[in-house]
Amino acid sequence: MIYLDNAATGGLKPPSVVSAALSSLKFCANPGRGGHRLAVACSERVNACRNLLSEIFDGYGFDRVVFTKNCTEALNIAILGGLKSGDHAIATCLEHNSVLRPLEHLKRERGVDYSVAPLKGGQISPQEIAALIRDNTKMCIVTSASNVCGIAPDLKAIRAALPERVLLVVDGAQGAGHLSLRMHETGIDALALAGHKGLHAIQGAGALLFSERFNPDPVTFGGTGSESYNLGMPEFYPDKLESGTVSYPAIVSLYEGALIVKCNREKHAAQLKKLTAAVYEGLKNLPEYTAYFLPNESGIAAFAHKRLASEEVAGMLDERAIAVRGGLHCAPLAHKALGTFPAGLVRASFSPFQGMREADALLRTLRNIH
Amino acid sequence: MIYLDNAATGGLKPPSVVSAALSSLKFCANPGRGGHRLAVACSERVNACRNLLSEIFDGYGFDRVVFTKNCTEALNIAILGGLKSGDHAIATCLEHNSVLRPLEHLKRERGVDYSVAPLKGGQISPQEIAALIRDNTKMCIVTSASNVCGIAPDLKAIRAALPERVLLVVDGAQGAGHLSLRMHETGIDALALAGHKGLHAIQGAGALLFSERFNPDPVTFGGTGSESYNLGMPEFYPDKLESGTVSYPAIVSLYEGALIVKCNREKHAAQLKKLTAAVYEGLKNLPEYTAYFLPNESGIAAFAHKRLASEEVAGMLDERAIAVRGGLHCAPLAHKALGTFPAGLVRASFSPFQGMREADALLRTLRNIH
Repeated sequence: MIYLDNAATGGLKPPSVVSAALSSLKFCANPGRGGHRLAVACSERVNACRNLLSEIFDGYGFDRVVFTKNCTEALNIAILGGLKSGDHAIATCLEHNSVLRPLEHLKRERGVDYSVAPLKGGQISPQEIAALIRDNTKMCIVTSASNVCGIAPDLKAIRAALPERVLLVVDGAQGAGHLSLRMHETGIDALALAGHKGLHAIQGAGALLFSERFNPDPVTFGGTGSESYNLGMPEFYPDKLESGTVSYPAIVSLYEGALIVKCNREKHAAQLKKLTAAVYEGLKNLPEYTAYFLPNESGIAAFAHKRLASEEVAGMLDERAIAVRGGLHCAPLAHKALGTFPAGLVRASFSPFQGMREADALLRTLRNIH
Repeated sequence: MIYLDNAATGGLKPPSVVSAALSSLKFCANPGRGGHRLAVACSERVNACRNLLSEIFDGYGFDRVVFTKNCTEALNIAILGGLKSGDHAIATCLEHNSVLRPLEHLKRERGVDYSVAPLKGGQISPQEIAALIRDNTKMCIVTSASNVCGIAPDLKAIRAALPERVLLVVDGAQGAGHLSLRMHETGIDALALAGHKGLHAIQGAGALLFSERFNPDPVTFGGTGSESYNLGMPEFYPDKLESGTVSYPAIVSLYEGALIVKCNREKHAAQLKKLTAAVYEGLKNLPEYTAYFLPNESGIAAFAHKRLASEEVAGMLDERAIAVRGGLHCAPLAHKALGTFPAGLVRASFSPFQGMREADALLRTLRNIH
C-alpha cells in the first residue's frame, strides 16, 4: 500500500518518535499530579515539549503552550475562548470545519458574527480581508496552508493589513512542520497545531501557542493538579486551559517529532515541493485530470477527473493499493471557492519521508484509470 | 520504586495493552477520514472499542459511546452539554473538580444553579439527595467511587430516590474497571470513563457513554469526516460530539484494557479489597496514623499522620522509593466532608496487578517515618 493521505494523519512515524512513545507505554505516571519523582519526571518532559514548541514557532514561553487532544480542540479554545457576544471575526474561505463550525456555533448561539474572505487570483488577498474589518472585529483566523489545495496565505501581508488590535489566529494543522511559522516575527497571536501531521507525533496531542496579549478563557473545566481548593480554574497558564490528564505518550512523541522538524524543516519542505511539482507536471500529460493545486511545501496535490467522481477515483486508487482521500475534506467553503463543490476533489498528500517512487506510482496508476 | 499512585494514572500496563498501542505507533491512518482500506480498518477498530465499552457497561450501543481525551472532557460534555440556563443540578461532596469546576462555571456564567449533597454516616444518603431536588433539577452527578477515600455511593438507591425525569450522570474515573457499573440495570444516563486508570489503557482516551433519552450538545466543534458540507455539527451521534482526529493508539489500547476488565473485573476488585484491607488493618498498629478509608474495591487507602503534613509524608515516602500523592487530590469538598481540609491526606492507591508485597512495603515504610 502506498499511503498518500498524510494530510489526514502522518503515516510512517520516525523511529525516535516511536521510541519515545514506546518508552511511556509500559509505565508512566501522571504529569502535574503528585510530587513524587515519577510524576515530576513526567512533568519535566511535558514542559520540555512546551519549551521546544515555543522555540520552534518563535512563541511566548512554555506557559503559553497548552496541550490539547488535537488541532481542533486548540482552535476551539482560541475561537470559543477568545470571542464574546458582540464580537466580529474574519475567517478565510480556505478554513477547515475546525474553524468554521466553532464560528457558526458562536453565530447561532452566542451573538458573534463572522465574515469570510474570498479567494482572489488563487490567493487570500490582504486587501479583501481589510475590507471586511469592522469596529468590533476582534480576531482574524487564517490557515497556514489549505488542507484541500495547499495554498499558503501570506501571513505577514495579512498581519500588515489588520489593525493592531485585531488578533491573528493561525490554523497550523497543515503548515506546521513544513512552513516557517514564526509567532513573534509574523505577529501571530495564536497558533494551533496538530501533533500527528507535519510534526510527526502519534495521534493524541495538539497544542495551542498564544501571545501575551491574548488571554483565552477555558472551554472545558476540571482538575489541574493546582489550586485544588479553588472551584474556579486557576488564573495562570497553562493550567487555566488544561483540564484533566494530558496524553503523555503523545506529548513525548511530539517532542521527538518537533526535534526532527527543528533540524529538517527546510529540507522536508523542499522535498514536499519537489513531489507535488512532479505530480503537477505529470498531470499535464494526463488530459483526463485537472490539477487544483500548485507545487507547494505542504505536500498536497488535489485534482479532478473529467468524468469520474472524486470518491470513485479514490476508490479505484484504493483498489490499486494507493490511499488518497476524495470528497470535501471537511472544508466546504474551500471547495466552493475552487468551484469543486459539492463534487469534491481527489487529494493525494505526501510525507517528507516519501520520494519520487510514490509520486511516480501515483501518476502511473492514474494513467491507467478510465 | 513502588508505584502507589494508580488512582492518578494506572502504572504498569498489561502486555496486550502495550502491544495494541505499539501496533499503531509506527503506522496508522485517520479513523473516519477517507474511504481507503487503511482508514476504514482504523474506523472498524475504533467502533469495536465503542461496542465493547457499551457491552461491558450495559450501555446504549456504539453510537452512544463518544471518545474524549480524558474523563474530564467526558464529564464536561455531560455537564456543559446537558445543562441550560435555568436548570438546577445536584452533585455530591465527593465529586472531583472535573465535576465541580464545570458546575461552578455554569453557575457563574450561564445561570445554572447546583446543590451539593453532604456525607452522612460515611456515605452519600439518597434521602439527602432527594431533599435537594427542585422542580428545575435536571441532573444528578455522582461519583462511582471517591478518588480521595474510595467510598462508592449506592447508585441504585440514589436512582430510586430521584424522580424519573432527573438524569443520573456517573463519574466513572475511579470506579470503572473495578466496580460493576451497569447503565441499563442501574438507570445511569451518562457514564464518564478514564481509559488510563482502571481500564488499563495508555493515557489519551476517555469516553462518555449515554442513554437514549440524554442528548448532550457539543462542547467543541469541528470536522467529523461526515456531512462536510454542513457548517453545523451533524445531528447524529457519535459524530455530533467527536470533533477532530481521535487518539487511535490510546483507543486501541483501551480496547485491550477493556477486554481484560471484561474477563477479570471481579477478581481484580477482590484483589484491591484485599490490599486496602491489609493497609487498613496494618494502620491500626501504627498509632501515629489515622485511616480515612475503609477496605474498598477501588484500591484507595487514604490516611493522615498525627503530626506531619500529608505532603511531607508523601515526600518522605518518595525518598524511600514509594510513590503516593499528598494534598487535596482535586477534590476539595471531599476533604471538607472528611474534615481534612486544607491539610489533605496521604493517598496510596493500588493496581490490581500489585500484591501484598507492595502493601507490606508501604506499612513497613510508614512505621519508620517519624
